[in-house]
Amino acid sequence: MAGTRHWAPMLRALELARAAAAAGEVPVGAVLVDGITGRELSAAHNRVELDRDPTAHAEMLAIRQAAAIAGSARLPGCDLYVTLEPCPMCAQAIAFARLRRVYFGAYDPKGGGVEHGPRIFGQATCHHRPEVYGGIEERAAAQLLRSFFSPRRI
Amino acid sequence: MAGTRHWAPMLRALELARAAAAAGEVPVGAVLVDGITGRELSAAHNRVELDRDPTAHAEMLAIRQAAAIAGSARLPGCDLYVTLEPCPMCAQAIAFARLRRVYFGAYDPKGGGVEHGPRIFGQATCHHRPEVYGGIEERAAAQLLRSFFSPRRI
Repeated sequence: MAGTRHWAPMLRALELARAAAAAGEVPVGAVLVDGITGRELSAAHNRVELDRDPTAHAEMLAIRQAAAIAGSARLPGCDLYVTLEPCPMCAQAIAFARLRRVYFGAYDPKGGGVEHGPRIFGQATCHHRPEVYGGIEERAAAQLLRSFFSPRRI
Repeated sequence: MAGTRHWAPMLRALELARAAAAAGEVPVGAVLVDGITGRELSAAHNRVELDRDPTAHAEMLAIRQAAAIAGSARLPGCDLYVTLEPCPMCAQAIAFARLRRVYFGAYDPKGGGVEHGPRIFGQATCHHRPEVYGGIEERAAAQLLRSFFSPRRI
């Protein structure tokens, strides 16, 4: 389905993930769009090492950027595209931001917090549950991560 | 035990929480210290509304600030004092930052992620578990929150 309007933000997120890998960062990219118009509001890749910031995941940066532009800590009606299942930190930030939908690429059994681990949106104490769609462009997203984490060969 | 060296950072965090309330923010304050020397590394209060940033909890800001100063995304040997039980987002950021200890004030059955909800540090997928000490200066911290959230009386 690559190339349709619907997946275009995920292809853009994959580009950002590739840029992250080239910069030595864990290859994850995220794009936040207006859920109605599809217009891109913000985009980021993981920058934990570049910024020396343990919270600088792609999703966090995209959310913070869009909230700053909107002048609001809440972004209802906005949809997030991210190449990897969000971790618990990012999942909780997504709930705080009141995002409408989350589309993610690869599943993350070790570090994910949506379909794995604490399953943040399924917690009784979670105030906002976005719609979640996983496995979108999954193979490309997972391949990027595998390439990054596999030992380099000479 | 107020006034001993040990609790001094929590009293400072309470001051920050009071400043947050005065600014119209949910009154939570956080202080990060070197676990050996006790030296303050960073301090912040909640700034979600001031900064229009859903991730701007006191703990997140204190961690980001200290990581920037240290030039490292990981802060082993550092201890966090925070007036309220960290939420799941902040708990996961604490794990990412590899903090040594977390001292918190009031328990948070509705929004907490350490002793309540997803209990982030108890998850099998959590890579780092700080030592956690709750209920420190609990009454003062809880009273601040109650005053903030109770309807104003004329």
